Amino acid sequence: MNFIATEGSHLVSVTNQTCIIVAGGSGIRMGASIPKQFLLLAGKPLLMHSISAFRMAVPSIPIMLVLPDGQQNSWGELCIQYQFTEPHTLITGGLTRYHSVKNALAVSEGSGLVAIHDGVRPLIQPETIRMLFAEASTHSNAIPAISSNDSLRWADDQGNRVIDRNCVKLIQTPQIFELNKLKAAYVQEYEESFTDDATVWEKAGNVVHLAGGQESNIKITRPEDLVVAEALKLL
Amino acid sequence: MNFIATEGSHLVSVTNQTCIIVAGGSGIRMGASIPKQFLLLAGKPLLMHSISAFRMAVPSIPIMLVLPDGQQNSWGELCIQYQFTEPHTLITGGLTRYHSVKNALAVSEGSGLVAIHDGVRPLIQPETIRMLFAEASTHSNAIPAISSNDSLRWADDQGNRVIDRNCVKLIQTPQIFELNKLKAAYVQEYEESFTDDATVWEKAGNVVHLAGGQESNIKITRPEDLVVAEALKLL
Repeated sequence: MNFIATEGSHLVSVTNQTCIIVAGGSGIRMGASIPKQFLLLAGKPLLMHSISAFRMAVPSIPIMLVLPDGQQNSWGELCIQYQFTEPHTLITGGLTRYHSVKNALAVSEGSGLVAIHDGVRPLIQPETIRMLFAEASTHSNAIPAISSNDSLRWADDQGNRVIDRNCVKLIQTPQIFELNKLKAAYVQEYEESFTDDATVWEKAGNVVHLAGGQESNIKITRPEDLVVAEALKLL
Repeated sequence: MNFIATEGSHLVSVTNQTCIIVAGGSGIRMGASIPKQFLLLAGKPLLMHSISAFRMAVPSIPIMLVLPDGQQNSWGELCIQYQFTEPHTLITGGLTRYHSVKNALAVSEGSGLVAIHDGVRPLIQPETIRMLFAEASTHSNAIPAISSNDSLRWADDQGNRVIDRNCVKLIQTPQIFELNKLKAAYVQEYEESFTDDATVWEKAGNVVHLAGGQESNIKITRPEDLVVAEALKLL
């Protein structure tokens, strides 16, 4: 059993925290010949930053890394090359993010909370992870969300119109859930609208609890994101 | 009369292109003691980058810079210090962005197109400006818009729910309009919902034409944005 501090410094007991890091992207949008999760940030592959952040946040946490079958050998070689020794379990990825997460949940046991994180969000900070675990232990889930700095418009077949930017939240990861409830939600058949875990959770009838996000927790999808991440990493 | 090339390389005649750069912010969110539009990017104040981009896009363009009364002396000193000699006209800012733009429109004459730009978006590229002028010459207005890389949720008093991120556009500047129609739109009384010029334009019954934006055209509102901008500037 681990104890983590909430923002108000009360101790919250959390049993069996688990982490699933999903890294199934092929990197097509990056224009890179290697998968984007293997690109280097501050001298080491993106994924290693994500794994280290979870280990720093909760030293005893078991980490599952979901990778496509064809990338697991390369990952093993990278771990040797970069002397990366953080313990983690490899899980084979599926056709979509939904199927990848489902593969990892299938081998997750016990109760407690599970954090599911995009491997290509390497700037996640240990403090954010701890805050989200604390929120999830109270609300059964915690989804990091930030606001937009830009004005927003809704555009569809009918044209476009302004929408209230205060009502729109940009959703990040890690998304944290009660493991057993999330596993029950993942019994649902796959739908195209399942772009993240909060969507699967919501569709199963659960309430989504939005928590604070981290502005710098960007997703690396384009080459310029990597340049931005390098700059933010130095802050 | 200027001629600018559209993306398809057809020449489009555009008379009387004008530019209004709005810089009224006090910089409170930056935690800086100097207004954010005066902060340095790549060695010179943010505003100078915006002005130079418009001059590069359309060499003959008249540029109006809207600044609060109390900042105009400091700006003059910065222009001397940084040997900044791009011609521009100073306009006194108003209580809100709406009132600042209205002050500049009041002294804008003739017909043609007017581009209105946030002074704190210093990474705007001349090619983006030219593309938007070309779009506006065909559609009477052009509003730069990009998509979100994150999943989005709608949060209000009723709770929160997922929304289709393909339908939500993040709106940038410069927003370009037919000058006379925009002046007519600005006859409307001020409303709190007037957060940008597209909103004022739409409220007057005009159709908003969304055009492509520029991913790196970020708004500098927080200290980390400046770090990101420095990195993007080097690309």
